[in-house]
Amino acid sequence: MNAPLRIGVAGLGTVGTALLRLIERHGNELAIRCGRPIAVTAVSARDRRRERGVAIDHLRWFDDPVALAGDPGTDVFVELIGGADGPAHVSVRTALAAGKHVVTANKALLARHGVGLAELAEEKQVSLNFEAAAAGGIPIIKTLREALAGNTVNRVYGILNGTCNYILTRMEEEKLSFAECLSAAQRLGYAEADPSFDIDGFDTAHKLALLTAIAFGTRIDADSIYVEGISSVTHADIEAADELGYRIKLLGVASRTESGIEQRVHPTMVPKASAVARIDGVTNAVAVEADFVGQLVLSGPGAGGAATASSVMSDIADIARGDRVGTFGRPASQLEPYRQAGIRLHEGGYYIRLSVYDRPGAFAAIAQRMADRRISLESIVQRRRAPRAGAPGHLVAVEPQPVILITYETTETAIREALASIKADGHIVGDPQMIRIEPFA
Amino acid sequence: MNAPLRIGVAGLGTVGTALLRLIERHGNELAIRCGRPIAVTAVSARDRRRERGVAIDHLRWFDDPVALAGDPGTDVFVELIGGADGPAHVSVRTALAAGKHVVTANKALLARHGVGLAELAEEKQVSLNFEAAAAGGIPIIKTLREALAGNTVNRVYGILNGTCNYILTRMEEEKLSFAECLSAAQRLGYAEADPSFDIDGFDTAHKLALLTAIAFGTRIDADSIYVEGISSVTHADIEAADELGYRIKLLGVASRTESGIEQRVHPTMVPKASAVARIDGVTNAVAVEADFVGQLVLSGPGAGGAATASSVMSDIADIARGDRVGTFGRPASQLEPYRQAGIRLHEGGYYIRLSVYDRPGAFAAIAQRMADRRISLESIVQRRRAPRAGAPGHLVAVEPQPVILITYETTETAIREALASIKADGHIVGDPQMIRIEPFA
Repeated sequence: MNAPLRIGVAGLGTVGTALLRLIERHGNELAIRCGRPIAVTAVSARDRRRERGVAIDHLRWFDDPVALAGDPGTDVFVELIGGADGPAHVSVRTALAAGKHVVTANKALLARHGVGLAELAEEKQVSLNFEAAAAGGIPIIKTLREALAGNTVNRVYGILNGTCNYILTRMEEEKLSFAECLSAAQRLGYAEADPSFDIDGFDTAHKLALLTAIAFGTRIDADSIYVEGISSVTHADIEAADELGYRIKLLGVASRTESGIEQRVHPTMVPKASAVARIDGVTNAVAVEADFVGQLVLSGPGAGGAATASSVMSDIADIARGDRVGTFGRPASQLEPYRQAGIRLHEGGYYIRLSVYDRPGAFAAIAQRMADRRISLESIVQRRRAPRAGAPGHLVAVEPQPVILITYETTETAIREALASIKADGHIVGDPQMIRIEPFA
Repeated sequence: MNAPLRIGVAGLGTVGTALLRLIERHGNELAIRCGRPIAVTAVSARDRRRERGVAIDHLRWFDDPVALAGDPGTDVFVELIGGADGPAHVSVRTALAAGKHVVTANKALLARHGVGLAELAEEKQVSLNFEAAAAGGIPIIKTLREALAGNTVNRVYGILNGTCNYILTRMEEEKLSFAECLSAAQRLGYAEADPSFDIDGFDTAHKLALLTAIAFGTRIDADSIYVEGISSVTHADIEAADELGYRIKLLGVASRTESGIEQRVHPTMVPKASAVARIDGVTNAVAVEADFVGQLVLSGPGAGGAATASSVMSDIADIARGDRVGTFGRPASQLEPYRQAGIRLHEGGYYIRLSVYDRPGAFAAIAQRMADRRISLESIVQRRRAPRAGAPGHLVAVEPQPVILITYETTETAIREALASIKADGHIVGDPQMIRIEPFA
């Protein structure tokens, strides 16, 4: 039997403790599968005394993760601290500089510093692996980086945030408002006390940035991703989507277009029969469209300690066997500059919901504004609300009426201009609601 | 740049020519991703002159694949000949013995000789990779062998044959008979002229045998798999399933039970909301349930030249980078003997369709036979057919009536004994139809 692979784990939250439990429970089996024992030898966390349900007394303890990262008694540094900068960044950099392999689940760190860290890893001829950073337990990094090596990827998209998918699923199933479902998610531990990072789409954007780099071989540019969250989605939208044969999902989408790579995160209407439409609750799913394989869909748990630890262990096992792949599937020097296709160039169908004053000429004016931008309408749904009880003989027709428009394929620029004109005309109350439609399979 | 990896391809059917096309089209990109050029240098097939839409004139030609396998001018032997024995087996053995890496898409070969070949590969310290053998373009081998290294798998199951899934999907969608859909599949090239290998479940069984070996770390035993095909599934069954909230799929299922590993292939009723129920047409899907990751589902093309070539290329890329994993995820010597849990020990719910003579006491007798084996019924559906037009005053009640029973969980032994007694009692026409129910998520 070969020498053990010595692991140092920084961060003992749900993922870190699950990893310790995994290695404890499956140690014998791991040694057989990897050809050598996997031994956690040192740990670092904020509080040594906290009860974690797993023994750490026999492990060397470091108060400072950076000290652990530089410690010569370990071969692999596992970073489970979190955060784009600070101790996570410094310790990962320290470990790589010391010639250690690094495994991390930290999407924020990689979205910001991934290319530089990959360059350092290559210089030191060590691995920088991050299966757990993009989709929890789903092996999408391995799939893109290794299994699809012989493919040109044209599009990668998916449900990458369980909190949002849980909220949207519940809104649909139980006819609840966004706010009610968010509270439920918080009660169940599916959403943070400050949920904005999830529900505003930034978590999805970080993950998408990593998938894009591997899928298209481009340098990471998380800041240029167009991001819209789910807080503006109403139950009226979900109901209208249902009637029209769609479901609403928060998707991250990256696709190859003539003008560059389009990366966007927003609520999306997808056909009910599509693979992503069928993913409910906290489950995540990633679809890849590539020239030789066609479409692959992977679904599974996008979060949770045990599932995430499974992906961290996958990365460690690769290192234990001596298997090395470039961090983003190729040498970092060979990542091409990211050429952004701005959201304004996006082409697709749109769902528009307006609250229209019910007065003569209002609808004609709206239709004309769409026609001015050469936007064709696939369907128009106007359902008259029951008029409010007014004094007998009083007109109540000024009560605004919901109007739903589905457009044929048009451009983001055209739709935005049309909606700005419609708003300026003064026939609608508030802002128009606009949700992009994707005819995914 | 490192030295090219020299590939010899034996078999130039749809997969072989797609592989040549892939390497031709993506050569530059592959060199970047793999760190060295991938060069096909020699080929072997039956007919050198056949028009294949891809140039082979510049490649060394071998009439005999075994000669190519032994040729010192290649580093990797890609076996795309097919068949469990004969030239495929001899050439793979020859290549391994010569110290060459082997990539194969040949499930029949591996189901029969996989363990012996894996031992030879280990002895020679070369790779024997077979991503394309289990589920076409779906990277399930890489997922089980590498991504789930830290998990104990409890169950793996899936739709592993596109022909069967196409036929069942069409029967459901278009209310056609099995025979009509089989003809359609043959016209479209989804089924062979002799379709028995697919529709009788043996193709699924070969694939399942390979998944089982990796998932449970056991030696391959394809012959002990319980196999039922789809030819007995009628439209009445599909309609009844639909009404009861199920769909019928041909599944391969391998699960860990107290008495051993249960491996079976048969038409299965799965809840409409389950992941596998939603897989239509020729698409394949594999679900894995494991202790840390929970449930993962991978879906995609299970066949086709381009998708299969994508998986063959994945195997070649691993070899090019020097990444090596044991053929079945561990040293062949560490595969445990396969301890079979016979189908008689299977526990689950059952769907039973009987054609019952409509006479006093018939139904009571049937119910008693079930009760004798302590089988509880979850539902009973008896729909009286419109009586045939008979002479006025004539009884037409001898016309048999369809009766559908859904049982609660019971054992295969109990159900078989009950059905044998029911048949012996003479109250039913023909054989009972029996389809196993799986409450998959």
